[in-house]
Amino acid sequence: MTAKYPDDTRLLIEAGLKKYFPKKRNPEVIYEAMSHSLFSGGKRFRAILVIEAAKLFGATAEEVMPTACAVEYIHTYSLIHDDLPAIDDDELRRGKPTCHILFGEAMAILAGDALFSEAFSLIASAQRAGDCGRIVDVVRELSSAAGVSGMVGGQVVDIISEGRGIDAATLEFIHENKTGALIKASVRAGSILAGASPSELTRLNSYAGYLGLAFQITDDVLDVVGDTEVLGKMAGSDVKLGKATYPSVYGLEEAKAMAESVVGRAKEALNGVAGDTAVLRNLADFVYERQF
Amino acid sequence: MTAKYPDDTRLLIEAGLKKYFPKKRNPEVIYEAMSHSLFSGGKRFRAILVIEAAKLFGATAEEVMPTACAVEYIHTYSLIHDDLPAIDDDELRRGKPTCHILFGEAMAILAGDALFSEAFSLIASAQRAGDCGRIVDVVRELSSAAGVSGMVGGQVVDIISEGRGIDAATLEFIHENKTGALIKASVRAGSILAGASPSELTRLNSYAGYLGLAFQITDDVLDVVGDTEVLGKMAGSDVKLGKATYPSVYGLEEAKAMAESVVGRAKEALNGVAGDTAVLRNLADFVYERQF
Repeated sequence: MTAKYPDDTRLLIEAGLKKYFPKKRNPEVIYEAMSHSLFSGGKRFRAILVIEAAKLFGATAEEVMPTACAVEYIHTYSLIHDDLPAIDDDELRRGKPTCHILFGEAMAILAGDALFSEAFSLIASAQRAGDCGRIVDVVRELSSAAGVSGMVGGQVVDIISEGRGIDAATLEFIHENKTGALIKASVRAGSILAGASPSELTRLNSYAGYLGLAFQITDDVLDVVGDTEVLGKMAGSDVKLGKATYPSVYGLEEAKAMAESVVGRAKEALNGVAGDTAVLRNLADFVYERQF
Repeated sequence: MTAKYPDDTRLLIEAGLKKYFPKKRNPEVIYEAMSHSLFSGGKRFRAILVIEAAKLFGATAEEVMPTACAVEYIHTYSLIHDDLPAIDDDELRRGKPTCHILFGEAMAILAGDALFSEAFSLIASAQRAGDCGRIVDVVRELSSAAGVSGMVGGQVVDIISEGRGIDAATLEFIHENKTGALIKASVRAGSILAGASPSELTRLNSYAGYLGLAFQITDDVLDVVGDTEVLGKMAGSDVKLGKATYPSVYGLEEAKAMAESVVGRAKEALNGVAGDTAVLRNLADFVYERQF
């Protein structure tokens, strides 16, 4: 691999997550269920996007850290609920037992719910950079991305499509919403807090759209070619569930080629953005290269 | 009954909920699951509190309607998740099949998640009255009330206490958090949006605390004395689950007397608040009287 993952930012985020995680009170079990899933070695990809987008427009990592952490809360909440027996029924996530395996189904549902609540609570109580108008904008971006015209909508179509042959348009709908929406909202949130202009926001939005698509294609490729150890979840689990994936719709080689082309477009979208876009370009390359 | 329920405000809220409910798009099933539970004839108690508190400080119902609707989204989300097989396993709610009975467990989990997202989305996109600083305050109030130190925390203690004898302090903890927190946040949200002063907010906060407690005591009493038709859920379901209730801890007559005393304190807390507090006093009486 030639693209380096921004591990310095990732470490800052780990520290931020520890700093902002709510103090354990009664009942402790729910905090344990939340932190089991939150602190399980994720890549912090979405939080990195918040921070790196904000840095482009002059904000520091620290200034947008509450929002970066909130995005990780939302992502983790969605993973906990996705893994539930009634949905994907996954026992392993990032190489560890999923939340409901360790804490039971009721606690897993509630740990997801709690992380989702705490995301907005953290933004509303600790996000200082960005005036209150921008903070309201960020709440709108993240809640819309998580909602029925975002993550939930994508997940629903994914579920009702299981075991059926689906077309390319449906596959795109699923991923644009299920994973793409939050990736886009992360980039937008960081940009908004740091005061990006409307035209800059448009470029970043376009970058994020392509990045999210590339991320999903390579995730699907990894599900076919990866082994369980690298993925941290059961390899082939998409195939097992009869889920539509880019390799199943386009074939493996074509999917890889699509990822390359989409990553190229992500980087092109950054042309004309002032400021140092190296980290965001590098992230796009990383997404492409991780599939090999 | 001498206390009249504020049905005029309830009707305004029904219209507001219809107006603000997200336009149906693909996939329609999730909108159907959400609206099944949202439009199932609830009393709109919490939304009424938002509006009536706001009116005390000079705002109109229309001006705070997005927040009032958002509170109903959050309440409905919590009911859908509470009713899930892994939690309370209820088949009937407000006289109708619960969300998971009609739409399956996966859709019910996601319908709850979606309503919760849309709550914040609605506030952030449509709430105009109150400057953006107040809107951020409302996001904080509602997300904290829903989170681990509110609704989720109360629900968790409720679950881990099932079938065990619990003491009065634990019973109080459960209800202060599981139902009290959102009732309090509803009153606070309306007051904040309409510009209540800190001392007024303190009085309203105290009113809401007593009101929430009275509401829970009378809910528990109704579970013992009511029939399924009036309650719209299975009478005796708390007893069936071995749940702690005010009648089970204090006895039925003592519980009724507690409700009366607590309602008195709720009304006392309104003394010294300028403006017409008649509707809020009347609501407190209504909560007491409904147990007979």
